[in-house]
Parts: sequence; structure tokens; C-alpha cells
Amino acid sequence: MAQAAEPPSGTRDFLADEVRRRTAAFATVSDVFERYGFDPLETPAFERLEVFAGKLGEEASALIFKILKRGVHEATGEADLALRYDHTVPLARVIGTYGSQLPSPYKRYAIGPVWRADRPAQGRFREFVQCDIDTVGSSSPLADADTVWAINDALTALGVPEFQFLINSRRALYGLLDAYQVPEELGLRVLGSLDKLDKTPPQQVIEELAERGLDSDTAKTLVEDIVGDEAGMRARLATTDRGRIGLAEVDRLLELTAGLPAGRVAFTPRMVRGLDYYTGPIFEVTAPGYPGSIASGGRYDGLVAKLGGPDLPACGGSIGIERILAVQTAHDAEVRGLEVALTVLGAEDDVLRLAGELRGRGLRTAVYLGTSGKLGRQLKWANDQHARTVLIYGPEEQANGQVTIRDMASGEQTQVARHQVAEHLQRVLAGV
Amino acid sequence: MAQAAEPPSGTRDFLADEVRRRTAAFATVSDVFERYGFDPLETPAFERLEVFAGKLGEEASALIFKILKRGVHEATGEADLALRYDHTVPLARVIGTYGSQLPSPYKRYAIGPVWRADRPAQGRFREFVQCDIDTVGSSSPLADADTVWAINDALTALGVPEFQFLINSRRALYGLLDAYQVPEELGLRVLGSLDKLDKTPPQQVIEELAERGLDSDTAKTLVEDIVGDEAGMRARLATTDRGRIGLAEVDRLLELTAGLPAGRVAFTPRMVRGLDYYTGPIFEVTAPGYPGSIASGGRYDGLVAKLGGPDLPACGGSIGIERILAVQTAHDAEVRGLEVALTVLGAEDDVLRLAGELRGRGLRTAVYLGTSGKLGRQLKWANDQHARTVLIYGPEEQANGQVTIRDMASGEQTQVARHQVAEHLQRVLAGV
Repeated sequence: MAQAAEPPSGTRDFLADEVRRRTAAFATVSDVFERYGFDPLETPAFERLEVFAGKLGEEASALIFKILKRGVHEATGEADLALRYDHTVPLARVIGTYGSQLPSPYKRYAIGPVWRADRPAQGRFREFVQCDIDTVGSSSPLADADTVWAINDALTALGVPEFQFLINSRRALYGLLDAYQVPEELGLRVLGSLDKLDKTPPQQVIEELAERGLDSDTAKTLVEDIVGDEAGMRARLATTDRGRIGLAEVDRLLELTAGLPAGRVAFTPRMVRGLDYYTGPIFEVTAPGYPGSIASGGRYDGLVAKLGGPDLPACGGSIGIERILAVQTAHDAEVRGLEVALTVLGAEDDVLRLAGELRGRGLRTAVYLGTSGKLGRQLKWANDQHARTVLIYGPEEQANGQVTIRDMASGEQTQVARHQVAEHLQRVLAGV
Repeated sequence: MAQAAEPPSGTRDFLADEVRRRTAAFATVSDVFERYGFDPLETPAFERLEVFAGKLGEEASALIFKILKRGVHEATGEADLALRYDHTVPLARVIGTYGSQLPSPYKRYAIGPVWRADRPAQGRFREFVQCDIDTVGSSSPLADADTVWAINDALTALGVPEFQFLINSRRALYGLLDAYQVPEELGLRVLGSLDKLDKTPPQQVIEELAERGLDSDTAKTLVEDIVGDEAGMRARLATTDRGRIGLAEVDRLLELTAGLPAGRVAFTPRMVRGLDYYTGPIFEVTAPGYPGSIASGGRYDGLVAKLGGPDLPACGGSIGIERILAVQTAHDAEVRGLEVALTVLGAEDDVLRLAGELRGRGLRTAVYLGTSGKLGRQLKWANDQHARTVLIYGPEEQANGQVTIRDMASGEQTQVARHQVAEHLQRVLAGV
């Protein structure tokens, strides 16, 4: 019973203040994306199972929540639908569905829950909000820069005080492999090891590279160079074709984001960003006080086709909004109380009328709905509701056509004529 | 393939304008509910299956989307989770979970999707938004009135031009059965037939009542009285104990909503509102031009306990927001275009900087991301984006430190100094 009362493992109930905080954050981000001309897209919570089948890696596929067939088919134990695992597979499906009805390029944002049957852990949930922008149908470096600018503005609007875009290019990474003559078949595993350099001491990465079959001298030089000075790395990359192309890509992105605050965007040769689908510039955002990365993205030209959509170039990014909200919880626990609490001591119909007048002026107003006729009990209720003011409209006030207004912070009480209460309170609560 | 591209049966993709329209409507409603002191609540998309088990009727249970167990348990074909069928079962669960941490009474609103494996039909979906308010822990008639007021204000804010609350009381309905000496065992079936009087001719209902076993003279008198004048019905109800109690309940609600526009709330003796869980006053809202009812609710004192929560009195209401949005679609198909479209004819980094300045002033601004260097092609893109203005910043303009601003409606072009563009456009687009 106690267990049944909890929400399912890995999910959360959001009570009032938390809903308000989250809703405000999502609205902040969508305002920024709208200003960039991104269009919102909302797809269903579930897709046909075959939309996911074979589209995600094996690891991801194991994390999909599958929905049982219904009615007479339920007994088969088979599933035909699956909860949304991310916003990218549905995006590819939508591009297939609507094609030329969509603007070209199609710049869309999606802010909404996704579901993954991951092992729940501190800060890892089975239902969480993903916050993505993607631009499908443009191969221009301006599209990559647009993504970085938009995410920069969204993080700023969310109140992240300091952060940095670490950028790199998949092509530069291939150039790196060429420059150090890493055997083709070791390439991806070498990059996988280098990706750990943000958390793992260089010596350990060197050992792992050697274990993975890289010549140990090469491993040592590679790691030392990559965490060494940028000029040296650039010179080395410039010795290969793919390295030069990658560097040019990085430099173009640096140029196109030069309007951002100084140092906001930094070439980071060791940054790999997973191994799968990125094909061009990639980025990751880190911020002091926030764990891991708080945003990431890049260009993934082959992905839409791989996911079943048409073959279009694409790039995008994702903000780790849950991670940001988790850090901000501590210093942003505002409670939204009532502006006006109305006690009920007779004249109920007029009390409701008065409440209507106050709401008409935009004031958050509630009426006592309990059974006690005692003012003390009703004041306790108002206090529990964090009410700023309480109205007392007892028999005496009713007889005189007056309402007593009590300021809950100071305890001060003033009498105001019944027909002037709404106007008076609007003025007082506006902070005069 | 064509079929796979569609969203799953009974679900919808919402593209840009539709998402914006829906989001705005939901925000309008939640603003109203906030003003009444209702708190938002968001529960997970799914609950443990046992939270629903035995809580919903058989018909409803068949409509639940069940989620297959994961990992090694998937092969059992068993489900352990179920998608949210409504907002009421999760509310009862939350009250069990958080109890005294919640305000008392607990006034909460929930606006979010629910899922039902209903047969899809015109206007009936498997994923749709429900929009509920509920007050748990108050038996006061003020709580019932509060619900009616809040829904009145929400419908008004949504722009429903004319509507009426039909009110009744479950107790008055029992009084009706007493007054016409309907045998106890026929009671619910008789009410079920009377509930059809809004759509079915009286004669047909009389016949159905007779078929269901009611004496045919009684059937005729009952139906004629119930669609006849209110005074007669009131007099008849006043002859029984339950009728008098019910009438008092109705009259109290009429008194407490007397501050609403005249005629907004009307006693409707034939209105039954389903047969299940209502225990006190009930209401239904109809509006010219809108099919069926666009809101409904009532008091359901036993339900929270029946759903597994503590035994608390409760009342609430629900707005048929999908139905309202469906009717409003026709006369509210606003397209949100760009305020500024920037062409790209060189100086890309400065174009992005300029875009940043415009967005900093809140203007919805996008940069051309295609490959064509031809102005004509870029203007076509801007036109497709419904841009109000287009900026042209070609080699000549760059050399002169000027930007050409084209008004897309008039075709008029003006030149403005590069550093004054943002300020100039903000002024122009504000509608001067």
C-alpha cells in the first residue's frame, strides 16, 4: 500500500511550486527558440513500434517502454506501440509524413517528456523532459552557428551564469587519427578512449589506448598533444587532408559565433561527443557548478535518412534542462501564495461576488471552504495558504458596508468600503 | 511505408500554428485557475497497473493502454504499468502519497494528455488533453460554487461567446424517483432514460421507460412534467424528503452563483450526468455552436476513497477543451510568420551579429540557411516564411555601412545605417 502510493519507479509527481518553476523554464526556452524562427512540434507520446525498430542501437532499444496490444490481442503478450524514446525519431517520421508542407529548411523545437526504462538513479529518471532544436534541410555552416547562438541565448535566459561551448568537428577527429597514423580498425575505439579525457587522468587514458591495441608511444604522444597547447594540435592536424577540412569547419564556426561574449566558444580537440551519428561540427556546453554537460549537439547529415526520413542534411542541439533545473532547485524555491484570502462569516453570495471582482483585477484570490465559523481557524487557513492579505466581512462589517483588510505580514488592519475593496487591494498589492 | 509515416491511429501531430494555439489556450485556462487559488499538479504519464485495477468500471478498464514489463520479464507478455486514463485516479493516488503536505482543502488543476484505447472517430482521439479542477476536503456549497465560477471564467477567457450551466442535484433526482413512486430497483435505469431527453423526443423516452418496466402512465406523466414548467416540477419534488433536500442544494448553488450574468445558471430537472459517482450538485455546460456539452462536473463525496485515497468530500469539473479547440479552429487559423528574415549575401558573421541584435529586442528573426546566393531565391524563402520584413545586406550595402529593409507587404525598400537597424525595425514593427 505504501509502495502503491508512490509514483512508479523513476517518475516524479510535480506539486504546485515545482510545476510553476518547470513551466516557466520551458516557456523561457521556447520564447528564445521562437525568436530564432524555430517552430514548435508536438508528436504523440507513443509511436508505432516499427518506427523505432532497428533505428536505435541495441542498448537504446532495450530501454523502450512498449505498449501491449489491446482487446482480444492483449492475450498475445505482443506490443504494437512504444513510448517516445527521444524527439529525433519522431522528427524523422514527421518529415516523412508532411514533407513539402513543412518550411524548408525545417527549424523545429520540441520540449516535452521522453521515456526510457533506464535503471533509476540520482538525477536519472524514466520520464524526463528533453529540450531540442533541429534544423533539417540545410548544409550551411550558418545553420550550425544558428544552433550555437540559440542555445547560448536559451542558457542565458535560463539564468546559467557562466558557461562555455567546447567545439570540435568529427572531420577534425578523423584527421587526428590520420595525423597519428592510428590503424583504421582502431579508430572508433581510440576516439572512445579520448572522450574520457574530461574525467580521467591522461596516464590512465594512455594505458587504456595501449590495451586497446594502439602502439604505446603513439598513445603517449597523442594524449600529451591533445591535452597540450592548441597551436601544436592545429599544426599537427594541418598535416592531413581530413584534419585541414575539420579545422576549417571549426574555424568557420568560431568566426560565425564571434559575436558571442569573448571565450564563450573554444576549440577542444579532445572532445568526441559519442561515436554514432555526428558528421560535422560538434559541441558540448559545460558550466561551473553544473555536473557534466548542460547542452550538446552537432551536425548529423545522414541521420534523418537512417531513421526512415528523406536524405536531408541536419544539425541540432539539446539542452539538459532537467540537469539545469536540478541545480537551480536549491536557490530558487519560491512559494506562490494567495494574494487575497476571503474569510466567510455569512453573506456567502456577496463574498463570492467580491472574490469575482478581485479575480477580475488579476488577483490570486481564494475563499475559505471549510466548515468552521471561527475567525481564528479561518486566519490559520489563510496563513497556511501564504496569503498576503485577508478580508474579514463579518456581521458588523456587513451592517456598515465595510470590509476589514488585514495585512498578514504586519498584522495591520484597515477598513475599506465594500464597493472600493477591489480597487483598493489592486493598488495596495501592486506594491504601493 | 505510407501508413508507417502516419502517427498511430487516434493520435495527432501538432505542427507550429496548432501547437501555439493549443499552448495559448491551456495557458489562458491555467491563468484563470491560478487566480482562483487552484494549484497545478503534474503526475507521470503512467501509473502502476494496480493503481487502476478495480478502480474504473469494466468499460473503462478495457480502454487502458498497458505497458509491457521490461528486460527479462518482457517475454512473459505481462504489463505492470498503464498510461493515465484520466486525472482523477492519479489525484486520489497523490492525496494518498502526500496527505498533510498538501493544502487543505486541496484545490488543484491538471491540464495534460490522457490516453484511451477508444475506437478512433471524428473528434474522438486516443491521446487528448483533459482539463480538470477539483477541490478535495471541503463539503461546503461554496466549493461547488467556486467550481462553477472558475469554469465560467475559463470559458469566457477561452472566447466561448455564449453558454449556460444546466444544474441539478443527485439528491433531487432521487427525490424525483420518490415523487413518482418509481420502484427502487428501476431507479438507475429510469434516470438513464431521462438523461437522453436532451437529444431524444419525449415520446421515445416514454416508450423506453415503459420497456424498462415502468408503468406507462407514470412514464408519461414523469416525462411530461420533467420537460414541462419548472414551478410544477419544484412543487412535485417538494412533496418528498429527498426532493426537498435536493431542491435546497440546487437553490443554494443558484444563490451562490447569482453574481454571474443573468440566466447563466439554470435548474434543469432532467439533467442526470452519468450514473456513477456524483453525490450532490451536478452541472453541464452547453453553448450554441458547440456540440454536446463543453464542460461538466459536480460533487462526488465518496470517490476519492473508492479510488484508494482517504475518505474526503470532493467536487470538481472538467472543461472539454479539445471540443472547444475543434470548433474554434475554423475561425482562428492565425499563422505566425517571421518578423525579420535576413538574406545572406556575404558578411555572414555580421549577419548573425545583426540577427542577435534583433532577437535581443524580441523580434522573431531568422537567417537564410540555404545554398543559393541569388537574392530572388532568398526572397522566395522569406515569403514562404511569411516574413514581414526582409533585410538585404549585399556587397554594396556592406561597403556603405547600410542595410536595405524591404517591407514584404508593400514591396517598399528603405536604407538604414547598419548600427541603427535593430532600433529602427523594433520601432517600425511595433506598428508605428
